[in-house]
Amino acid sequence: MIVVLAGGTGAAKFLNGLVQVVDREDIYVIGNTGDDAVFFGLHVSPDLDTICYTLANEVNHGTGWGLSNETWNAMATVERYGGDTWFHLGDRDLGTHLYRTARLREGATLSLVTQEIAEAWRIGIDLVPMTDSPVRTYLELLDGTEVAFQDYFVKLRHSVPVTAVSFRGASKAVPTEGILEAIGEAEQILIAPSNPIVSIGPILAIQGIRELLEKNRDKVKAISPIVAGLALKGPADRLLRELGYESSVVGVAGLLADVADKLVIDEQDMALAKSISEMDIKPVVTNTIMSTPELAKNLASVVIDC
Amino acid sequence: MIVVLAGGTGAAKFLNGLVQVVDREDIYVIGNTGDDAVFFGLHVSPDLDTICYTLANEVNHGTGWGLSNETWNAMATVERYGGDTWFHLGDRDLGTHLYRTARLREGATLSLVTQEIAEAWRIGIDLVPMTDSPVRTYLELLDGTEVAFQDYFVKLRHSVPVTAVSFRGASKAVPTEGILEAIGEAEQILIAPSNPIVSIGPILAIQGIRELLEKNRDKVKAISPIVAGLALKGPADRLLRELGYESSVVGVAGLLADVADKLVIDEQDMALAKSISEMDIKPVVTNTIMSTPELAKNLASVVIDC
Repeated sequence: MIVVLAGGTGAAKFLNGLVQVVDREDIYVIGNTGDDAVFFGLHVSPDLDTICYTLANEVNHGTGWGLSNETWNAMATVERYGGDTWFHLGDRDLGTHLYRTARLREGATLSLVTQEIAEAWRIGIDLVPMTDSPVRTYLELLDGTEVAFQDYFVKLRHSVPVTAVSFRGASKAVPTEGILEAIGEAEQILIAPSNPIVSIGPILAIQGIRELLEKNRDKVKAISPIVAGLALKGPADRLLRELGYESSVVGVAGLLADVADKLVIDEQDMALAKSISEMDIKPVVTNTIMSTPELAKNLASVVIDC
Repeated sequence: MIVVLAGGTGAAKFLNGLVQVVDREDIYVIGNTGDDAVFFGLHVSPDLDTICYTLANEVNHGTGWGLSNETWNAMATVERYGGDTWFHLGDRDLGTHLYRTARLREGATLSLVTQEIAEAWRIGIDLVPMTDSPVRTYLELLDGTEVAFQDYFVKLRHSVPVTAVSFRGASKAVPTEGILEAIGEAEQILIAPSNPIVSIGPILAIQGIRELLEKNRDKVKAISPIVAGLALKGPADRLLRELGYESSVVGVAGLLADVADKLVIDEQDMALAKSISEMDIKPVVTNTIMSTPELAKNLASVVIDC
C-alpha cells in the first residue's frame, strides 16, 4: 500500500499521475481538513473535494478546483441580496456541501461522508480526512489579528504578510480510524507536492502522526512544491519566507527532514541538491512540473521507484 | 393601511391582484412561517419566498413556487450521492436559503432578513413573518406519529389522513414587532384565500393575534380558499373533512367566524350564502378563481370595496 499525505490542487495533480502507475486500490490518501470552513451554514472541505473531482476527471481545469460544466445561479441570487460571495460556490459543487452538511447533521462522521462522496465519484482510491475532529488553520497577520485559512487564501488572496500559523484543535484531534495502521503497514509514504506549512503542517499536527512518520522515516518520500524558489500555485513561497524559512527546496527540506528520507526536487534546483544532502535528507532530481497528465505520470513513476 | 394574513401560493396570487388596486406602500402582509423547515442545514421559508417571488414576477408559474428560469444542478449532485431530494431546491432559489441562513447565523432576526430579501426583489409591500420565534406546524397521522409540515405536504404529497394539527412553539411565540400595531391601526384586515387550518391557523395561534383580531372583527374580511367544496390547490378540503369540518365555504366560515366579519365566497357557492349568514358572518359572493392577473385584480377590488 502507498500512503499519500495530501493538500489540494498540487496533490490532486500528483495523484492523477500516481493512479497511472499504481493500482487505485493500493492508494490511501490522508487529506488535509485544516482548510475546511463553514459558508452559509454548509460544511466545505476544499482539499478533499479537489482530490475527488480531479480523480473523477470532473475538476474545473481552468481553476484547479470546483467542478467542470458549472453554473453559478445560487451565488447570483446571494449577490442580489448583497451577501458575501467571495468564496464562490458553483451550483453543482454546492450539492456536495449540501449532502455533506446534511449527513454531518445526521451524526455521520466526516470520514464516512468523505467515503460516500468518493464512492459516488468512483475514484477508486481510499480518501480519508486526517481527523474527524474539527481542526482549523489560522494565520496571524502583522497587526496581530488571526484569520481563518479561507479568509487568508481566498478573501485576502494570500497577499498579506503572515507572522504565525496555528492549527486550532489539532492537539486534541485524533487521527481518523485506520490512519495509524495504514502508515505503519505502508510500503511507501509519500508527501504530495503541497504547501508544507498549511497543507502538510495540519496533518503532521494531529496527535501521533508526526511521531509515527519519524519512526517510519525510511519509507517516507516528499515532493517539493517549490521549484526555483517559487510556488507553482498559492502562497507556499512567501509563507516560507515570512515564517523564517528559505523560499527554496532547502526551506522545504528543513521543514520535512525529520519525517522524510528523500526529497524529490525539480531539475531547475539541481544546484541545491548538495545543500539538501547536508540536511540528512536524500535529494532526488527529476522534472516535477506536472503540466500534462503524462508528466504527472512520469513524476509519480520516479517517486515510486526512487 | 391594509393588513393581509397570508399563506403561500393562494395568498401570493391574491396579493398580485391587490397591488393593482391598492398602493403597494399601504399593504402590510403577515406571513405564515409554520411551514418553515431546515433542509441540508439551510433555513427555508416557503410561504414568504412564494410571496416575494410572485410579487417580483419571478415565480415559476408552472408550479406556483420557486423561481422561473431555474436550474437544478445542486440537486443533481445530491442525487449522485443518494441524498434526499424530495424537497427539490432549484439553484437560483438556493441562493435565498443560503443568504437567509448566513444572516440568521450572524444573529439577524427572520423579520430583518425577510425585509432585506423583499427589498432586493423590490416588491414594494411590507412582508413580515408572523413571529421571529420558531413555530413549526406538525400533523398527526392515523398511527399517532407526528410529521412536520413539509414531510406531509411534499414528501407524503398530502395524501395521508390527518387526525390533528399542532403548531409547536406557537404558545411561546410573540408576534413580530409592529404586527399588533399594524392590526390595530389597519383600515381593513384581509385573510387571504389560504388554507384556514395550516396557513392561517399558525398565525392565529401566535400570542395575542387571535384576540386582537376578535376585537377588530368588524374590519376583518376573509376570502374562502374552498370553491364548490374543493381546494383550488393543496389539501385544504381533505384537512377540513378529516378534522371534522364541512369541506365547503360553511366549514371555512365555522373556522373564521370568530375573527372575520365577512367571508368572500365564489359564485358557485351562492346557494350556501344563507347558511353562512346564519353563522353570524356576512357572505359576499363574487368570482374568486384567480386564473389570470385580471381576475385577481377584480377579486381584490371586490374584497376592498365590500
